[in-house]
Formats: sequence, C-alpha cells, structure tokens
Amino acid sequence: MTELDPRIAQRLKRDPNGLVAAIIQQHDTGEVLMLGWMDDEALARTLTTGRVTFFSRSRQEYWRKGDTSGHAQFVQSAQIDCDGDALLIRVNQIGAACHTGERTCFITGGDLGAVPATAEQLSQR
Amino acid sequence: MTELDPRIAQRLKRDPNGLVAAIIQQHDTGEVLMLGWMDDEALARTLTTGRVTFFSRSRQEYWRKGDTSGHAQFVQSAQIDCDGDALLIRVNQIGAACHTGERTCFITGGDLGAVPATAEQLSQR
Repeated sequence: MTELDPRIAQRLKRDPNGLVAAIIQQHDTGEVLMLGWMDDEALARTLTTGRVTFFSRSRQEYWRKGDTSGHAQFVQSAQIDCDGDALLIRVNQIGAACHTGERTCFITGGDLGAVPATAEQLSQR
Repeated sequence: MTELDPRIAQRLKRDPNGLVAAIIQQHDTGEVLMLGWMDDEALARTLTTGRVTFFSRSRQEYWRKGDTSGHAQFVQSAQIDCDGDALLIRVNQIGAACHTGERTCFITGGDLGAVPATAEQLSQR
C-alpha cells in the first residue's frame, strides 16, 4: 500500500464509493483524453510512480493505463480543484487513450450536436 | 422541462444521484476550466440554449454559470465519452471559471507535487 500524503487526503471530497474524478489531459496539445476514477491509493500511486493509476468501478481493482495495451500515460503534473472532487492529471499519452484504439474517449463517444452560442458570444473574453 | 433526446439519454451512465461528470474546456486555448455535474435536464438545457447548465449536488438545484457572477460559459460543442459517464463541453468562458475569481478551479486548488515521469517518457508518442 502506498500512503497518500494526509494533507492531500483531507482535501479530497470522495463520492459514496470513495472515488474522485480524474481528468486526463495531454500535456502539450491540451487534448482531453479521458476521465477515470481514483481512490486514495490510486492517487498516491499516480503521484509517486510517474504512471497514471485508476481504480476500476466495474472490476473493483487498480489498473495502470498501458499495462495490457502498451498505451501508457506518463505523469507530468497533477492538480486538485477548489472543492476537492476533481483532479487534473497532465500526461504524455503513448498511442491511444481509449480502449477502442481512438486517441481520446470523446472521439469514440462522439459529438452530441449542441446548438452553439453565437459567434459573438464565442469570441468575447 | 427540456426533453433530452432519448438517443442521448440511453447512452448516459449516471451515478446513483442520476448525474454524469462534465469537463468544461476553453475551446481555443484547451485550458480545463472546471468539472461540474449534469443530470438529463441540465444536459438538455446545455445542448439547446448555448449556455452551460449544471445540477448542484449540494444545493439540489439547476444553475447556469454566470447568472450571478456574469462569468458565463457559452457552448461551442459537447461530446460524450465511450462509456457514457463523462461529457466534454467546449466553451467560451467569460472571465473567471472558478467562484474564487481564478481563471480555473485547478489553479485555485493547486499543484499536488507529483513526481513526474522522466523527460524521455514525457517526450515519446
């Protein structure tokens, strides 16, 4: 077992299964690759080993991206959000992030056809 | 009530509270701004009104980013992931995304001091 720094542990706002959402982003292009779930142990391993580790809700086990596919996620940095229920992990993704072979899980899932805001609304800051 | 397209509704893998995670990303810079939560109604409003709508777990109510702060999120596109438990909403964020006044909720929460992978691991693709 890898111990999570108690100062980090006390900031996590876990769901009823003890998990927080982890957004995985390619560090140089900014692509959002996937969303995974981490408990304290998975986060501790992610922060200390250079490899992203998740907890699988369906299989109830720890898994490292790439152990079977070779498509590893190498950690560049990790941030927590203001209320502690989400993590942003910046990585270098080798090959495809999605189990389908697509680069991201959102390419696989696809577009939902949102009605976009006006061009003016999309250009102001 | 805004009806969510049944073809989208059947793809959602909701948590026990009926929610899916929504990653909010600035459409042009790629910044990950925040993570929010949507039920079917919040997603339907997001897809049809040009404004991001969340469901607040703590307040048990719908809210549109910017209605009190002026810091609106205007929708550019919405995607779903491969297993239906996460959404990626690309937006134009007016001003700060975080309620603290920071541009993103992850700047507010801050860095967790991850041990990064090697430079070589971070550069291969």
